[in-house]
Amino acid sequence: MSSQLNHFVVQNHLNCWSKMGQNSIVQPLLTDLYQITMAYAYWRSGKHEDRAVFDLFFRKNPFNGEFTIFAGLEECLKFLEKFRYSESDIEYIKQILPSHIEQEFYDYLSTLTAKDIKLYAVQEGTVVFPRVPLLRVEGPLIIAQLLETTLLTLVNYASLMATNAARYRMAAGKLKLYEFGLRRAQGPDGGLSASKYAYIGGFDGTSNVLAGKIFNIPVKGTHAHSYITSFNKFDEITHKELLPAGGGQPINFLELAIGFRMKLVSIFNVLLSEVSDGELAAFASFAIALPTNFMALVDTYDVKKSGLINFCATALALNELGYKALGIRLDSGDLAYLSCIARKYFQRVAQEYNIPYFGELLIMASNDINEETILSLNEQGHCIDSFGIGTHLVTCQKQPALGCVFKMVELNGEPRIKLSQDVQKVTIPGKKDVYRLYGESGAALIDLLQRSTEDAPADGRKVLCRHPFQESKRAFVIPSKVEKLLILQFDNGRISHCVETLQEVQQRVENSLRILRPDIKRTLNPTPYKVSVSDDLYHYLHTLWLANAPIGELS
Amino acid sequence: MSSQLNHFVVQNHLNCWSKMGQNSIVQPLLTDLYQITMAYAYWRSGKHEDRAVFDLFFRKNPFNGEFTIFAGLEECLKFLEKFRYSESDIEYIKQILPSHIEQEFYDYLSTLTAKDIKLYAVQEGTVVFPRVPLLRVEGPLIIAQLLETTLLTLVNYASLMATNAARYRMAAGKLKLYEFGLRRAQGPDGGLSASKYAYIGGFDGTSNVLAGKIFNIPVKGTHAHSYITSFNKFDEITHKELLPAGGGQPINFLELAIGFRMKLVSIFNVLLSEVSDGELAAFASFAIALPTNFMALVDTYDVKKSGLINFCATALALNELGYKALGIRLDSGDLAYLSCIARKYFQRVAQEYNIPYFGELLIMASNDINEETILSLNEQGHCIDSFGIGTHLVTCQKQPALGCVFKMVELNGEPRIKLSQDVQKVTIPGKKDVYRLYGESGAALIDLLQRSTEDAPADGRKVLCRHPFQESKRAFVIPSKVEKLLILQFDNGRISHCVETLQEVQQRVENSLRILRPDIKRTLNPTPYKVSVSDDLYHYLHTLWLANAPIGELS
Repeated sequence: MSSQLNHFVVQNHLNCWSKMGQNSIVQPLLTDLYQITMAYAYWRSGKHEDRAVFDLFFRKNPFNGEFTIFAGLEECLKFLEKFRYSESDIEYIKQILPSHIEQEFYDYLSTLTAKDIKLYAVQEGTVVFPRVPLLRVEGPLIIAQLLETTLLTLVNYASLMATNAARYRMAAGKLKLYEFGLRRAQGPDGGLSASKYAYIGGFDGTSNVLAGKIFNIPVKGTHAHSYITSFNKFDEITHKELLPAGGGQPINFLELAIGFRMKLVSIFNVLLSEVSDGELAAFASFAIALPTNFMALVDTYDVKKSGLINFCATALALNELGYKALGIRLDSGDLAYLSCIARKYFQRVAQEYNIPYFGELLIMASNDINEETILSLNEQGHCIDSFGIGTHLVTCQKQPALGCVFKMVELNGEPRIKLSQDVQKVTIPGKKDVYRLYGESGAALIDLLQRSTEDAPADGRKVLCRHPFQESKRAFVIPSKVEKLLILQFDNGRISHCVETLQEVQQRVENSLRILRPDIKRTLNPTPYKVSVSDDLYHYLHTLWLANAPIGELS
Repeated sequence: MSSQLNHFVVQNHLNCWSKMGQNSIVQPLLTDLYQITMAYAYWRSGKHEDRAVFDLFFRKNPFNGEFTIFAGLEECLKFLEKFRYSESDIEYIKQILPSHIEQEFYDYLSTLTAKDIKLYAVQEGTVVFPRVPLLRVEGPLIIAQLLETTLLTLVNYASLMATNAARYRMAAGKLKLYEFGLRRAQGPDGGLSASKYAYIGGFDGTSNVLAGKIFNIPVKGTHAHSYITSFNKFDEITHKELLPAGGGQPINFLELAIGFRMKLVSIFNVLLSEVSDGELAAFASFAIALPTNFMALVDTYDVKKSGLINFCATALALNELGYKALGIRLDSGDLAYLSCIARKYFQRVAQEYNIPYFGELLIMASNDINEETILSLNEQGHCIDSFGIGTHLVTCQKQPALGCVFKMVELNGEPRIKLSQDVQKVTIPGKKDVYRLYGESGAALIDLLQRSTEDAPADGRKVLCRHPFQESKRAFVIPSKVEKLLILQFDNGRISHCVETLQEVQQRVENSLRILRPDIKRTLNPTPYKVSVSDDLYHYLHTLWLANAPIGELS
């Protein structure tokens, strides 16, 4: 069934993509008005076909960290491929621009596509750093400019989410992670994007069914408190029977579970009067409906006095009929403590009833969890196997936006530089390539920005890497391996590479983080990874800076 | 043209809605998987047609404030109206649920609609408070449960954004506010929703063109730094001429502006060598293209030494040809100081050249502004006329999620209560109505929750309002006016009221905030507004609480 499922989902994935593609809100009008007024002003000034180069990059890693996962590329490429104003778009633009604008401009706009754009980009899922161009957009000024806002929208949140997810993944180690954030996400698509990029960043699945359908992501879920509270007493279950897994006559499952509960009260030292009947009715009905998928929310009343014993009774009844329960979910309280209590209960039952798998039933936790909660749970010790994570993950509560910018670095072969009082905000001019230099151990040593006219650094050959702004900071590096980061992804109106599956991108994130030294990845006071410029680029930048420096001021 | 524009936009609005409606990602699969597994378990237990009542509400106002604006209703209603699983949805659900599930269940799902749901809701744009049901959903348990996640997604972010925007509006008073956040929003639809709900909350417009097209919101924009840096020198403008507004021969506009700049250097006491020629070329080209919409970004080089003088030169040249410049945008630096300098320059030119409107040219600020920035600018004094607000507004940085929940309060006429160690988390059981009681001054005094079986409070008649959990807190209130907050909005598969325009909803936000005492709205230590329960509901709640209290513990 798994291969059948896969086939179905992949087909479906494609159908959905093309369906969503046609009507997606990712379209040329999803932009700031000033891009369109600038487009007109460029056109009017006769500059629209000037050859421009723009870099898309960020200046600071998010979440007080020292790395970022680049994501959103696939959506950027699909946007470029489809870029075209519809008739109704042109009609709308006419209404919002001044009435004196020439029809000729609208005619021009209506034929405009991204076919003359070359897009170079880092591969999706790669770990990246401040000032490294993630995208380099080359082509006619007018169209390159018109792409700005949409590309930023597509890269900013995707990269922020993927980075956030990767941080949770590092904190959680081998534990399972599920994204449960749809209800608190920023809009329906905020939720959908969160599911996608959480998966890329290293999550195991999502609760979001539409994300599962569109992106072929595993979906997970149990039941809510309302399911439990919808049962008050035993006789609310109309169908009490369950067929044993191995076949035979239907058995009164509820009675079986009630019987096990009688035996368990003494083992667990609780009073039967404290244990909720409604909860057992709810568990039993759920197990009858989904005997192969029984995962129970145990904190509706009292985890220790009711939830765990009702769960164990139901799970033992399932076991009697040849089914294995999956485990429990904890959604409130002291998760470290309660998970260890639950594990102790499970091990006790495993021993009493000689059912080894019972000791290893899954314990999932899902109460307002963030990266710090996981780190703190690790420190205290806990028995949790998986986390369901919502609000903090999908809204990126610690830093809800990544500050990518889109800056012109060259026009008609002439460099462009944006100066600023703040050195961090000075742009590195000219068309550039980016290389990642690796050491003998396989770890990434440094990123090197060069002018595109320079020869690429070579394996085993000494290369001077300089701090872009501090003259004294420079070092010779002899790389064991050199990786070119910016790759041609879009040319002649077409996407140059096969679109990757999310699983492939997820794998790249994992590999990409593996080649990073641990001190760069740690949560507390991580070491910054170095992004350098070549000697040639250093002089190019500083000569231009000097030529553009204001007169009469110490710059 | 304005009425023509309106006509166009409204038509277009409708087209877009229906288009987006059909293919929107707001569809039944945009939910958590557990809703679907619960639906199956309800169906299997024969409980799916039990009659349920759910309340959607939040427990705490966002942003350390004491009020919230309810929004998202229109989208909820459209979702209900269209609710139906497609064939491909059913196929997908089959693949992710266990294989033993009966075909009969899928047949049932495929015919399921929301026609048996009654939705009562507060009107969109109303100010609301913790524990007040914003939506009351009544109907068959299975469908009410299946709506949960999507309704939460649609209400949570919409209400959070509208509230955030309303807070900016209160801080900014009469100044103009524009939403510029698309590039930093959480996904493309995060951006689109932000534009819509910022407008509802009191913004004057957005930079997001698609939001303008779909929602009929005014769109605004100038140009970016890249436009300025794309010009290095005068001869990069190929078309230097502009026709005077009143007709006649085209005039060399660039020369005219250069001439004015020569005169201005002495007035403003700057050196011509400090003023950027590229910037003037950019301004002039933009003015030639859009002479009726000239708004200039003046901080690319140096506001005081270059941007302002180049702007004034261009604006004077426009004035000479019969056009009026609009103003400037400041995107960096000390906004209070620079705006006052700019105002001083403008007034000086107004006087020197006897052009009164020059003294009142618009000054817009747009650098990383949040609610606190505006309050602090108010305190210092400034000369800003309008703000362009991005990241902080659209991501709701101060609190990126509102915690609405969806709780079952009644099943088959029996109340349901969710108990918790934390009194804040105890739900108020049963089907309820909500009344807002007004005092003589017209200010809202208190909200009153009653059992739906009780008579509505009446104008001028004494009513006992109790704190839901503290026995000693109670008071008699004699309302001058009573407003019923929960209104039937969806019944028999149809939306019961005409869909309102965003302008109408925006107006309701304004009116709704006006009836709130100022101390409830202030930023620092606001007074909580009281939400009370009737005496009947108080006893109903506490009797149930007692009946459900755990034995052997002090509850």
